[in-house]
Amino acid sequence: MTKADQKFIKQLQQKKYRKLHKAFVVEGLKSISDFLKAGFTPLHIYSTTILDEQLYSDFERITNRELRQISFLKHPHNALAVFKMKPVAGKITSADFILALDNLQDPGNLGTIIRTADWFGIRQIVCSKDTVDCYNPKVVQATMGALANVSVIYTDLAVFLQETAKPVYGTFLQGDNIYKTVFPAQAVVVIGNEGNGIRPEIESLISRQITIPKSSSAMAESLNASVAAAVVMNEFFRQKF
Amino acid sequence: MTKADQKFIKQLQQKKYRKLHKAFVVEGLKSISDFLKAGFTPLHIYSTTILDEQLYSDFERITNRELRQISFLKHPHNALAVFKMKPVAGKITSADFILALDNLQDPGNLGTIIRTADWFGIRQIVCSKDTVDCYNPKVVQATMGALANVSVIYTDLAVFLQETAKPVYGTFLQGDNIYKTVFPAQAVVVIGNEGNGIRPEIESLISRQITIPKSSSAMAESLNASVAAAVVMNEFFRQKF
Repeated sequence: MTKADQKFIKQLQQKKYRKLHKAFVVEGLKSISDFLKAGFTPLHIYSTTILDEQLYSDFERITNRELRQISFLKHPHNALAVFKMKPVAGKITSADFILALDNLQDPGNLGTIIRTADWFGIRQIVCSKDTVDCYNPKVVQATMGALANVSVIYTDLAVFLQETAKPVYGTFLQGDNIYKTVFPAQAVVVIGNEGNGIRPEIESLISRQITIPKSSSAMAESLNASVAAAVVMNEFFRQKF
Repeated sequence: MTKADQKFIKQLQQKKYRKLHKAFVVEGLKSISDFLKAGFTPLHIYSTTILDEQLYSDFERITNRELRQISFLKHPHNALAVFKMKPVAGKITSADFILALDNLQDPGNLGTIIRTADWFGIRQIVCSKDTVDCYNPKVVQATMGALANVSVIYTDLAVFLQETAKPVYGTFLQGDNIYKTVFPAQAVVVIGNEGNGIRPEIESLISRQITIPKSSSAMAESLNASVAAAVVMNEFFRQKF
């Protein structure tokens, strides 16, 4: 591993370099294997242990010390790979359920939402352009490989919501009880920013405001965004399973 | 603020000193206010802005620089307080729903679970002794004040499960479909460790294994522990609201 390789990988912590090189980092053998299975092309695979050449072609053996130098994690796993981004599907599919994120900022939340979406079979998430980048190392880590299976589309959320033929739901602190909401066959559900919720300009495009009911003794003002998203997905899909 | 004060606060990042001093740190005015409302006693309140003396007695004004020195956060809020721990209620209440955590290790997950539990009106969580400390600064942060409202009891989980009269459920990858599970009026539900799930010695004490059904196209092997806990709480409480 050359100094140039090290520099290249370190650069990929920053969104501008990920965009420039159209590449991102995946850590841990399980996640690397998930991205390979999903047809992503590896540019480099580094590992502190010997890997099966048939599964991981052209991998390079490195020392623990070298891994620590390039890893984004406090406690590095035993392998790190650089993958090429797949060209983004510009078109939003006509899936029955579309999850839309308005300005989510926490990488752990976005990663957890991608992981949960994958679990429920959602293959596409629509995000406002200012939502945290899905190739951010902390997002990739939190998806536990699920990012390989879910495409994340960054778009002008207001335009998307104006143009969709599906009814648009959004989670709010004061809305209709989600447990009494009968979702139609197709729906878009918007989840808002961690601190500020859904922006007024997006709120005006939402036809039905829903709420996860809160206990009267609760102190918390809101649920974590990834928990709210999980409850919404769960409520939509529980009828299917 | 003296050097000794700074040292004291820094020590509280470590569990052994929190235990020794029976004190923990809360950051951000909203969370500090939640702990005060819940009857916790502040030892010190530091703020970069002037606070209402009636609500925040004996607060000490500090500079941004001083706050950065004592804060556990990358981007400190405008206030930090040290609170006395409340004596732990040794007895586990007879609440209808008891959430039990087996060796949860991620502070963000525990914090999010406490926040979600508070939302659903759960006032007590039972944890195995090796579960991450609820006064860990990252846990406190992730609860968004909800820790003030939920007591977390660390106990020998196997003994607790042996002694409880309630039916004991646990989340597994292969179990009965949670959507088809009719929960009884009272139940204990066990959530396992992030990587390893529920330990065999705990599993043997579980009378019914439940699963959140997974899409056949999913790549993720499991759900995030805080998401699994949220779905379980949601399923139990959706009948109530």
